[in-house]
Amino acid sequence: MSTALVILAAGMGSRMNSDLPKVLHKIAGAPLLVHAITSGAAVNPSRLVVVAGHGADQVRSAVEDWAPEAEVVIQAEQLGTGHAVLQAREALEGFEGDVIVLYGDTPFIQPDTIARMVEARQQHDVVVLGFEPEDPARYGRLVMDGDQLQRIVEYKDASEAERAITLCNSGLVAADATVLFDLLDQVGNDNAAGEYYLPDIVAIAKDRNLSATAVTCDPSETLGVNSRTELAQAEALFQARARAEALENGVTLQAPETVFFAHDTYVGRDTVVEPNVVFGPGVTVESGAEIRAFSHLEGCHVSQGAQVGPYARLRPGAELAEKVRIGNFVEVKNAILDEGAKVNHLSYIGDATVGAATNIGAGTITCNYDGVMKHRTEIGNHAFIGSNTMLVAPVKVGNRAMTGSGSVITKDVEADALAVSRARQENKAGFASKLYDMLVAKKAKRDAEKNKENL
Amino acid sequence: MSTALVILAAGMGSRMNSDLPKVLHKIAGAPLLVHAITSGAAVNPSRLVVVAGHGADQVRSAVEDWAPEAEVVIQAEQLGTGHAVLQAREALEGFEGDVIVLYGDTPFIQPDTIARMVEARQQHDVVVLGFEPEDPARYGRLVMDGDQLQRIVEYKDASEAERAITLCNSGLVAADATVLFDLLDQVGNDNAAGEYYLPDIVAIAKDRNLSATAVTCDPSETLGVNSRTELAQAEALFQARARAEALENGVTLQAPETVFFAHDTYVGRDTVVEPNVVFGPGVTVESGAEIRAFSHLEGCHVSQGAQVGPYARLRPGAELAEKVRIGNFVEVKNAILDEGAKVNHLSYIGDATVGAATNIGAGTITCNYDGVMKHRTEIGNHAFIGSNTMLVAPVKVGNRAMTGSGSVITKDVEADALAVSRARQENKAGFASKLYDMLVAKKAKRDAEKNKENL
Amino acid sequence: MSTALVILAAGMGSRMNSDLPKVLHKIAGAPLLVHAITSGAAVNPSRLVVVAGHGADQVRSAVEDWAPEAEVVIQAEQLGTGHAVLQAREALEGFEGDVIVLYGDTPFIQPDTIARMVEARQQHDVVVLGFEPEDPARYGRLVMDGDQLQRIVEYKDASEAERAITLCNSGLVAADATVLFDLLDQVGNDNAAGEYYLPDIVAIAKDRNLSATAVTCDPSETLGVNSRTELAQAEALFQARARAEALENGVTLQAPETVFFAHDTYVGRDTVVEPNVVFGPGVTVESGAEIRAFSHLEGCHVSQGAQVGPYARLRPGAELAEKVRIGNFVEVKNAILDEGAKVNHLSYIGDATVGAATNIGAGTITCNYDGVMKHRTEIGNHAFIGSNTMLVAPVKVGNRAMTGSGSVITKDVEADALAVSRARQENKAGFASKLYDMLVAKKAKRDAEKNKENL
Repeated sequence: MSTALVILAAGMGSRMNSDLPKVLHKIAGAPLLVHAITSGAAVNPSRLVVVAGHGADQVRSAVEDWAPEAEVVIQAEQLGTGHAVLQAREALEGFEGDVIVLYGDTPFIQPDTIARMVEARQQHDVVVLGFEPEDPARYGRLVMDGDQLQRIVEYKDASEAERAITLCNSGLVAADATVLFDLLDQVGNDNAAGEYYLPDIVAIAKDRNLSATAVTCDPSETLGVNSRTELAQAEALFQARARAEALENGVTLQAPETVFFAHDTYVGRDTVVEPNVVFGPGVTVESGAEIRAFSHLEGCHVSQGAQVGPYARLRPGAELAEKVRIGNFVEVKNAILDEGAKVNHLSYIGDATVGAATNIGAGTITCNYDGVMKHRTEIGNHAFIGSNTMLVAPVKVGNRAMTGSGSVITKDVEADALAVSRARQENKAGFASKLYDMLVAKKAKRDAEKNKENL
Repeated sequence: MSTALVILAAGMGSRMNSDLPKVLHKIAGAPLLVHAITSGAAVNPSRLVVVAGHGADQVRSAVEDWAPEAEVVIQAEQLGTGHAVLQAREALEGFEGDVIVLYGDTPFIQPDTIARMVEARQQHDVVVLGFEPEDPARYGRLVMDGDQLQRIVEYKDASEAERAITLCNSGLVAADATVLFDLLDQVGNDNAAGEYYLPDIVAIAKDRNLSATAVTCDPSETLGVNSRTELAQAEALFQARARAEALENGVTLQAPETVFFAHDTYVGRDTVVEPNVVFGPGVTVESGAEIRAFSHLEGCHVSQGAQVGPYARLRPGAELAEKVRIGNFVEVKNAILDEGAKVNHLSYIGDATVGAATNIGAGTITCNYDGVMKHRTEIGNHAFIGSNTMLVAPVKVGNRAMTGSGSVITKDVEADALAVSRARQENKAGFASKLYDMLVAKKAKRDAEKNKENL
Repeated sequence: MSTALVILAAGMGSRMNSDLPKVLHKIAGAPLLVHAITSGAAVNPSRLVVVAGHGADQVRSAVEDWAPEAEVVIQAEQLGTGHAVLQAREALEGFEGDVIVLYGDTPFIQPDTIARMVEARQQHDVVVLGFEPEDPARYGRLVMDGDQLQRIVEYKDASEAERAITLCNSGLVAADATVLFDLLDQVGNDNAAGEYYLPDIVAIAKDRNLSATAVTCDPSETLGVNSRTELAQAEALFQARARAEALENGVTLQAPETVFFAHDTYVGRDTVVEPNVVFGPGVTVESGAEIRAFSHLEGCHVSQGAQVGPYARLRPGAELAEKVRIGNFVEVKNAILDEGAKVNHLSYIGDATVGAATNIGAGTITCNYDGVMKHRTEIGNHAFIGSNTMLVAPVKVGNRAMTGSGSVITKDVEADALAVSRARQENKAGFASKLYDMLVAKKAKRDAEKNKENL
C-alpha cells in the first residue's frame, strides 16, 4: 500500500515573535518541519506534500534544501486544518493509498507511531493519533467504544463523563486518500472561528458507517512548539534523548549536558567527548576517536583514533582519516587529511588534500581565495610544512617536501624539495634601545601637545 | 518631590572570604552595588550617597567608575544600619525630599518596587519594604493594622501571634530626609550587639504619632548576597530572568542555559544565539543577527544580519555594520567594520577601520602597538587583504587595493594598487630529504650522548 | 601498624560497552582506579596491590603511570571477590599488618572512612564498611548486635526481619593480612554463580569466635560505576563537590555549573573564574588570578594576579609568573613566562622562556619542531617581539631586543638589537584593479567551460 505524507506548515506562529515561519525554526540543526518529515520517512511514503501559508516562499525554499522530493502547495487563507489538508488534493490527484497528516510544528512524533497508524489503517477507515497527557484538561477527547473511535469532542462541548476521558486528540490522522478528501468535502465551518476542522471527519465517517479508531503514543511525542521558550524546551528534550542514546551506545560524555548533537549526528563506541562540544548537522565520528573540549564540528567525518581539539573547528567537507590530529585554533574546511596527518596549532586548511603523516606547522594557511575564485592546495605524504607557511592555491607540495617557516609558496614544490621564500635576517646592534627611546620621546611630545589642546 | 538614594555599602561580608568588599563582587558584569543604584535610578533621584566602610577606597574607586554622580561617605566603625544612614546626613545637608535607603548587597530590588515606596510616601511618613517569604522563620515581622505599620518586631522578641505573621522586614526604608534623620537621632543601641538599627525608627515614629506603612515586594527581590555560593545563586537568578526575557523578545537561544548576559545586554528580535556565548557589559545586537557558538562579546555593537563566530571575540569598541562577518579565532577591538566586510579566520583587527565589502584574509594582523604607543589602520572599501598580511600602523590601504599574502605593509597603499613585500620562492631539489636525514642523524648522535651520560 | 591496600580491578564492566577496562574510565581526569588508590593513600599504606583481570595489560600500564609504587597481580579467571583478594596473597607474602580491600570502580570512598576502618580494626578482627541507602532493597544486610557484626545476609536469603535492616554491605573489608587469607581459604563457592565471595569471611570469622564489626559511611561514598550514564553521574557528583569547595574557599565562579575541575586542581582565594573553563590534571592557580571564559588548562601553574584567556590554552609545563597575561587564541606549552610578560593574541609559545615584562606580538610562533627534534626558544626581559615573528628554535633573543613584524628569526638576537628579515614593500599602482578584472574574466571563462561540459 502506498502512503503519502501531508505536512501542515501554514501557521503563522505569532507567539514565536518572528519573521521566520514557525515551522522553519530549528531544533538540533534542522527545521521543525524537517523533523516531521523525517519521522514520516519511516513509512517510506511515495508522496510528500507540504502545505505552506505564512512565509510560503521561505518554506518552499527550505523544503527545496531539505526535502527536494516534496511538493509544496499553498494555503492562501488559513481557514483551519481541514481546509489545509484539502489544499493537498490537487497535488495528490491520481494517488491511491493512505494519506497521513502530520504537523510541521510537532517534531517528536516517533517513526514507530506513524508505522502503527499505517498498520491500524488496514482494519479501519480513519485512524486518529491519541495520547494521554498528565493533565488532559484543555484537549479534545477521543470517545472510544472498544477499538472504535465514536467521536472527537472538544473540551468546551464535553459532558462531565466525557471530560473524565483521559485519551486526547493529537490532531494527526491517517485515512485512504479518496475517503479523506470525500469526508473533508463534507466538513463545514459552522463554528465560532469559522474554520474547517480536520477532526470533524470522524463524525462524518461514523455517519457513513465507516470504521474509525485511535492509536496511542507517548504524550511527549505530541509536544508542539508555539514560542521560543517551547522551542528551547523542545531542543532540550531532543538533546537529553540524544545524550542518553550516545551514553547507551558506549560514547563517553564527560559532561553530557554540555554536548550538543544535531538531528543526524553519529558518534561511535569508545569515542570520548570532552565538555563543551557542538555538533552541527552532517557529522559522523567513528569509534575510538577523541573530541576535546570547545570543538565545533559540522558536515565532517572523523575516523578511528583521530584526535580533534580542543578548540578545533571542522567545517563541511572536512574528512579526517585514522589517527589524524587537529589541534587548537585550527579550522578545516572541504579538506581531506590522510592517515596520521597533523595540524596542531592556529591554522586554516581549506580546499585542500593533506597526505599521510604530513605535519602542518603552526600558523599555516591555505590561501584558497583570490578574491574571485577558490583554488585547491595539494600536499603529499610525509611532507613538513614549516610554521606560518602561506600556501597560495592552486599549488602542490610533493611527498617528503619541506617548506621553510614563514614562506609564501606560490609555485609547486616537487617531492623531496625544500622550498623557502625568506628575506635574510639582519640584526642591527643597539637599534632596539634607540628605537624605544625615540618612541618614548615621540609619545611624550604627543602627550604634551594633547595637554596643551585641552587647556 | 526630590528623592535621594542612600546605599549602605559598608559591610565586610566576611563570609565572602575575600579581600574585595562584598558590594564590589559582580553579577552580570556589574558590582552588586551598581545593581542597587540602577534599581534606584528608576525614581530619578537628585542625590545619590553611598555609605562605604570596609574597603572604602575600593568602593570609592568603583563608584567613580560606575556612578560618578554619587557621593561616597565613610562609616568608619560599623555600628549598625541606623548609624550607617546617619553618615549620609552631612552629605544631604540642605536636601529637601525623600530619602530611600537601599542595600548594596541586595541587587534584585525592582525599580517598580522603589517607585511604589515613593508613591506610598505621599500618604505616610515612613515606608518600609516588606515581603512574604515561603519560610519567614528568622526574619523580623511587620505588624500591620490596616495600612498602618504598627511596629517591627524581631523574631526573638515576637509573641506566638506575631510569629504567625508572614509579612517580613526587608530593611529598606523611605522617609522624608528631615524626619528620617530626626528619628535616627533618637535610635539607641541598647541591645545585645550594641548597634543602632534603622528599623527602630518605626517605633519612634509611632510614638510621635507619625504614619508608617509597608509596601510589599516579591521575596526574590530581597535576596541578599553573603557568600560566593549566594553570589553564584544570584548570578543564576539574574541569568534565568535575562534568558527568559530574551526568548520572550523573540531571540532564539538554542541552549538558553549556556548563554550568559550582562546587566545591560540588548539582543534584537530574530537574532539567533548558538550555545556557549558570553556577553560582557556594553553589548547591543540588532535584529536578525547570528551569534554562533563559543563567542565572547564585550562593549560592542552588532548590526542587522551580521554573523559572528564561532569563536569570535569582540572587544570594546568593535562596531559591526550590517552583514559584516566575523569568523573563527578572530579578535576585533576598537574597530569599525563597514557593511559586508569579512574577517573570517584567525585574525586580529584592533584600532582600525575596515571599509564596506572589504575581505580580510586569514591570519591578518593590525600591528597597532609599537611597544610604546597604539596606532590606527585604515582600510578602504572593496579592498582585499591577502592572508597573513601584517598592517604596521599607522598605515592606510585604499579602496579596491590588494595586499599580497604574507606581506608586511609599512607604507600606505593607494587605491587600486597591489602591495607586496615578499622574498622570491626558491625550491631546492632534494634538500628536504637530505635535511631530514641530517636531522635524524643528529638526533641519533644526541640520544647516544645522553645515554652515555646516563650510564 | 602497617597497612596494605588491595584494589579489586579485574571486572569487565560489560555495561560500559567499551574496550577499555571499566576501572580505567576517568572521572575528573583520573581513572576510577586512581580515585580509589588516592582515597586509600590517606592511611599511608606501605603496600599497594592492584588485582587486574579484564584488560590487565591496559590496567598494568595505567598503574605504572599513575601509581608506580603499586604491584599488579592477575586474576586470570573472575571467580568472585574472595578469589580476587586471594590473588594478592603472594604479593603480600611476608607483609604483617592490616589489609584494606577497596574496589576500583568505587571512586568516592572518603579518606576519613578508610581511616575509621583502620581504627576499628584495633578492636575487631574483621571490619566491614556499611551504609544506609535511601532505598536498601537489593543490597545485602549487615546484621549487628551492638558493635558486633553477626553476619552478612544476601537480600534473597534474608528473613522479613532482616530485610527491615537498613544497614547495607558495601563490600569493603579490613582485616589482619594473616587472618584475612586464612579466612579466605575457607570460603567456598557453593552458590548459584559458583563464585567465592569476600563477605563470606564474616561468617567464618564468627565461627572461629573472632570479632567483626561494621563502620558506616555516607551512601554517596559507595556509589559504583557500571555504565557510561553512571560514569557521567559520578563525574557530575565530583564536579558538584569541587565547585562547592572552590566557592567555600573564596574562589568566584560566575557560573559554577560550567567550570570543570580535575581531581587535583587547586585554585586560590579571590581568583575569578568566568564561565566555561576546563581544568585538566595538574593545575595550580594562585590567589587573585583571573581565568577568563573558554580557557583550557592542563599541567600548568598560574601565579598571583595573572590573567588568562578568554580562549587561552595552557598545556603541561606552562608556568606563568605574577601578572603575566595570556590572551585569546594563545597556546602555551612547556614554557616559563616571567613576571608581567604578555602574549595577548593568536600565538604559540612552546618549549620557551620569556623574560619579565616582555611583550609577544600577535601571531608569534616558536617554531620548536624541525620535523625530528624539539628545540628551545629563549627570550630575555623587556624584549618586544613584533607581530607574526617566527622564532626558529634553537634561538635566543636578548634583553630589550626587538624583532620586526613578520620576521623569521633563525639567528640569535643580541641584547638591545633590532632584528628584521623582511622584503621591501612594493606598491604597484593600478595592479589590484587589473588583477581583479583578470580574475573575473578567468572565472567567467571557467564557468562558461563548465556550462559547456554540462550541456
